[in-house]
Amino acid sequence: MEARKKKIPVAILGATGVVGQRFVNLLSDHPWFEIAALASSEKRVSHRYGDVCQWHLTDGMPSEAADMVVQSLEPTLSAKIVFSALPSSIARKIEPEFAQAGYLVCSNASAFRQEPDVPLVIPEVNYSHLALIKRQKRERGWKGLIITSPNCTTTGIVMPLKVLDQAFGLRKVFSVSMQAVSGAGYPGLPYSDIEGNVIPYIGGEEEKIELETRLLLGDVQDDKRIESDVMISAQSNRVPVVDGHMSCLSVELEKKPTIEEACRVLAEFSGPSLKQSLPSGPEHPIVVREEKDRPQPRKDCNAGNGMIVSVGRVRPYSILDLRMVTLVHNTLRGAASGAILNAELLVSEGYIN
Amino acid sequence: MEARKKKIPVAILGATGVVGQRFVNLLSDHPWFEIAALASSEKRVSHRYGDVCQWHLTDGMPSEAADMVVQSLEPTLSAKIVFSALPSSIARKIEPEFAQAGYLVCSNASAFRQEPDVPLVIPEVNYSHLALIKRQKRERGWKGLIITSPNCTTTGIVMPLKVLDQAFGLRKVFSVSMQAVSGAGYPGLPYSDIEGNVIPYIGGEEEKIELETRLLLGDVQDDKRIESDVMISAQSNRVPVVDGHMSCLSVELEKKPTIEEACRVLAEFSGPSLKQSLPSGPEHPIVVREEKDRPQPRKDCNAGNGMIVSVGRVRPYSILDLRMVTLVHNTLRGAASGAILNAELLVSEGYIN
Amino acid sequence: MEARKKKIPVAILGATGVVGQRFVNLLSDHPWFEIAALASSEKRVSHRYGDVCQWHLTDGMPSEAADMVVQSLEPTLSAKIVFSALPSSIARKIEPEFAQAGYLVCSNASAFRQEPDVPLVIPEVNYSHLALIKRQKRERGWKGLIITSPNCTTTGIVMPLKVLDQAFGLRKVFSVSMQAVSGAGYPGLPYSDIEGNVIPYIGGEEEKIELETRLLLGDVQDDKRIESDVMISAQSNRVPVVDGHMSCLSVELEKKPTIEEACRVLAEFSGPSLKQSLPSGPEHPIVVREEKDRPQPRKDCNAGNGMIVSVGRVRPYSILDLRMVTLVHNTLRGAASGAILNAELLVSEGYIN
Amino acid sequence: MEARKKKIPVAILGATGVVGQRFVNLLSDHPWFEIAALASSEKRVSHRYGDVCQWHLTDGMPSEAADMVVQSLEPTLSAKIVFSALPSSIARKIEPEFAQAGYLVCSNASAFRQEPDVPLVIPEVNYSHLALIKRQKRERGWKGLIITSPNCTTTGIVMPLKVLDQAFGLRKVFSVSMQAVSGAGYPGLPYSDIEGNVIPYIGGEEEKIELETRLLLGDVQDDKRIESDVMISAQSNRVPVVDGHMSCLSVELEKKPTIEEACRVLAEFSGPSLKQSLPSGPEHPIVVREEKDRPQPRKDCNAGNGMIVSVGRVRPYSILDLRMVTLVHNTLRGAASGAILNAELLVSEGYIN
Repeated sequence: MEARKKKIPVAILGATGVVGQRFVNLLSDHPWFEIAALASSEKRVSHRYGDVCQWHLTDGMPSEAADMVVQSLEPTLSAKIVFSALPSSIARKIEPEFAQAGYLVCSNASAFRQEPDVPLVIPEVNYSHLALIKRQKRERGWKGLIITSPNCTTTGIVMPLKVLDQAFGLRKVFSVSMQAVSGAGYPGLPYSDIEGNVIPYIGGEEEKIELETRLLLGDVQDDKRIESDVMISAQSNRVPVVDGHMSCLSVELEKKPTIEEACRVLAEFSGPSLKQSLPSGPEHPIVVREEKDRPQPRKDCNAGNGMIVSVGRVRPYSILDLRMVTLVHNTLRGAASGAILNAELLVSEGYIN
Repeated sequence: MEARKKKIPVAILGATGVVGQRFVNLLSDHPWFEIAALASSEKRVSHRYGDVCQWHLTDGMPSEAADMVVQSLEPTLSAKIVFSALPSSIARKIEPEFAQAGYLVCSNASAFRQEPDVPLVIPEVNYSHLALIKRQKRERGWKGLIITSPNCTTTGIVMPLKVLDQAFGLRKVFSVSMQAVSGAGYPGLPYSDIEGNVIPYIGGEEEKIELETRLLLGDVQDDKRIESDVMISAQSNRVPVVDGHMSCLSVELEKKPTIEEACRVLAEFSGPSLKQSLPSGPEHPIVVREEKDRPQPRKDCNAGNGMIVSVGRVRPYSILDLRMVTLVHNTLRGAASGAILNAELLVSEGYIN
Repeated sequence: MEARKKKIPVAILGATGVVGQRFVNLLSDHPWFEIAALASSEKRVSHRYGDVCQWHLTDGMPSEAADMVVQSLEPTLSAKIVFSALPSSIARKIEPEFAQAGYLVCSNASAFRQEPDVPLVIPEVNYSHLALIKRQKRERGWKGLIITSPNCTTTGIVMPLKVLDQAFGLRKVFSVSMQAVSGAGYPGLPYSDIEGNVIPYIGGEEEKIELETRLLLGDVQDDKRIESDVMISAQSNRVPVVDGHMSCLSVELEKKPTIEEACRVLAEFSGPSLKQSLPSGPEHPIVVREEKDRPQPRKDCNAGNGMIVSVGRVRPYSILDLRMVTLVHNTLRGAASGAILNAELLVSEGYIN
Repeated sequence: MEARKKKIPVAILGATGVVGQRFVNLLSDHPWFEIAALASSEKRVSHRYGDVCQWHLTDGMPSEAADMVVQSLEPTLSAKIVFSALPSSIARKIEPEFAQAGYLVCSNASAFRQEPDVPLVIPEVNYSHLALIKRQKRERGWKGLIITSPNCTTTGIVMPLKVLDQAFGLRKVFSVSMQAVSGAGYPGLPYSDIEGNVIPYIGGEEEKIELETRLLLGDVQDDKRIESDVMISAQSNRVPVVDGHMSCLSVELEKKPTIEEACRVLAEFSGPSLKQSLPSGPEHPIVVREEKDRPQPRKDCNAGNGMIVSVGRVRPYSILDLRMVTLVHNTLRGAASGAILNAELLVSEGYIN
């Protein structure tokens, strides 16, 4: 991947939280982007980032970021793209202000994912939904735009589901997910609640997975989103794992592939051809594991720098057509890296001048 | 529960393993039974139990057991009932020798679960399958008998499935289980494999769950087992939990109950009327939790001294009719206590003279 | 232990916190005491306890407690003894109000532990420090009194140190503790911070251990506390353990006992003779484990209903005289049960009329 | 670090075990060495490494290694240096055969660490002990040699102790270690034993730490090892941590440095000047952390690719002079990387022709 001659200045909203820190880490050495501003809530503004950010990543805080002064969440940052790691309640107010002011907002928040004119995008799955941006700009009068990336668990199952849908026609999906603690942010779950335990409930998660999957597998026609009519049931559990959301899937298909055919289309999938290849996009975003006991979150969630979805145990089903296990790194592909890939898509497709 | 005037002498085969230890613990203070012999493999024979048994339970080893001398696995033990905690490969050879010699063998091993003339029983679910014993004795010429209890995960899901089947007619079941490490015995899984991880495979488990569920929900007619024609799919995962197997179920029913109706029949279930009530049998073997985030293995697996199956998150389903979460204590109701309950059933139904 | 004809009414201050819940659980079936009132901060007042208390113990909430109405933290509760599970900052203001009004305050908070006229007591170690109460009442003009129980880690090491001090003269102690997460209350440490990790720092803990040990091993003469001149160094670590604080001790003694002598005095220790034996006090408050790898927190912290301190690996030392490992249940003997034992001591010694 | 024009062929003995795998991983991209042979016990010989090695590292198995054919543990391997990851009982027989045949054996086993003519070396601490090799070759008549690296826990404490000894004169050391599960190899500890627990005993560990520390801090004079007369006491605990051994140290010194002086000499330490700088050797092998709650195993054990020992909480002591916490990556600096550093030392010092 060739680095750009002049990098595009970007800003991070909510830079001191866990997802914000992931953005800082990932963008501190990005071939196209350079961090021009870090913004956070009022009490941290005007302080040195290294002084007010309690760093949680194993990799140390990048020294250039540590020395930056935190700015406020106002659309006066010297950047073209802003990555939003804001809580949804705050995102709902702040992100439109940035879009209005001309920024390209790549959001990891759920605030606007279901708006009819805001694209919810995984480049390999539905980049054509960018077409909604025209309507968004027209109706809202924004100089900039908002694009969102999906819920972390959804990301891990939609990628293989898309491939199966294209190849064989997807009818029904049963998903039971076992989700890592990092999905709850920081401080997240107390040790005393989740250690040696499973909690069979994550607030709002099942609804998000079901709806977002239908949106991502759906179409955009005449500026309108058309949900896929796939039937999907999601059950979510929290398990004592640090990173990596795993899902057990059962799917019913229109055509009945052999296991070999299913594995082949999954492994060969490479997403659509874009005008320019994306630095964070793996050549094959899905890897199919052949071992009987993989993928496993601790061993496999970092595949492809956390950008590759691992699929394993593809096997026939007594009731439906296929069963399989999927794994995604929930704070990389499922959060910060996913939003960065969307920003790269915008650049590739000419949304930045 | 009235204690018997004179307790029935029982023996434990495989008394030094983890399930064997559970038997020792549970039987050391049982109202009907008293431990008369502890048997194990040759190298431990003639040693004091307390000296050759590496005790793993949090409750200390009962002192009377500690002082017993370990006997060999031969059918010369001074007992009427033997509880088998043997590995299946050894059980296949040893259990028939005891049945031949007149012992009532209550087995926790999988060796004979699928034999056409050996009852696989949960008293509350299918005690009428005891009818197979007549055929077993007739065809094999045994003075004693073998009765088996099911796989631990199966036990946790079959109890509520039976209730739903009786009330509403069960058609299809999708089960995804998250199983505790104690299910793998001792030493079981290395810390370095399962800590902070999920392993999406347990050898042979899914096949057992699918087959045993059909057997337990099936009938016995004219000395023959008739499998239920319910369609079931099982996916098994190992999670870093000490005790307690949890399953996420999705079920399709013939009649369509409301959530309230489904919860009511589950909570009110009390099993069949027997000639004598069983000391280890809870009045209501299923509890329905109303909190949105229960049951949880660490908090709930000991319900009813580990004999009650907890059901939670009963809720409607976009595709099938009901979704729910079930939890069973895998080494109590799902292993040692389940076999003891079967022995109590044999006594209650007059199989011992 | 004979139950009293008429139980003494007691109240719990801070009843909804983790230690408060332990008090509720332990006092719901106490032979001398009965819970007459539960008090908490304003926002919970007038609500049903079961509705505003997020219960964290594995044992379920006692139903009588669940139905009580939470009262405010004012000295108008219909009780004679109050158990304080308040945070220290609040305890500092509230506890004197109760003492002033005539209540016997048995506090688990650190607020008054170091006051010159407030006894810091473990009945088996220094019950004679109750003598300070006379001065307390005289100088403060209180109708009631405050008595405190020590820091959880201190409790675990002082018990064996006291025995060694009496028998052999204690000169120096090096303590390195590995402390359970429950010591930090609820929510306590995030899973993502402590899982698979050790944190070599607990704020204020080392100072408390060093000072409280000198106080507990010291004397009271002429209404004055005289600190022991034992030299002690404490290093504290947080480890991923649910309950049970373990300490590695190295001690220098004036007389040089053999290992057998040291083990014997530890195991035979039974505390002082009191006017009446205390229901929560074990006959032998220390157990000496002979296995080379015990005590272990998960297996041994419940010894004697969590009231017995386990000591193991007593062995000679290349530099000092003895090394050993001690274990205490930090929320039972080291917190709620310790304060209850102090209340029993007050009753036994006639401080209640 | 310049790569050598022609890499030195090396072999790994015990290549399929956990430490063996670390060697494979580290040597697959080493600037001076290239893997020429992988050797293991008979049953794996003649098989493809990738087929008989159950890989445990998160980094995948290097593909070149996967395709190598496993050779037997006989001194006919086409290599100059052999790295031994053999169990000590086997190392005792095999390693001399290789030394006899002319190989430079860099051993991670404890078999020969205490032999009077076998150097036990950490390059930064006591590289001058290489002088023993002359005696070793003379007395044993070996064409090759054996050099050993110390026990993993010892490595983590000796490095800072050496610095303090040189600067201020070391008299006494109290060490309490909290050691990771990976130190026990694979399968190592069962999850059910160590999860949420601490085991206060590791067989043979305390004796090794005490003896090896005295050897490493000692001298070699006239071909003889002279143990340091520092007094050291070691207590070892196993904690539920994946990688990283932490130790709480208390030390008595002859000169009494300020905390600042002690921190400065630790942080500035860079080891001796060698003929050639070693590729695996960090410029500063000790880092001093200033945060009050660091180092922590999960966050800090990978410092300097696992080659840097982290020291924190340097603080004064009520009894002795200094307290501090040290952390070492037990399978890198404390095992495989330590042995590789020794091999680099041999090359640098001209032991290979």
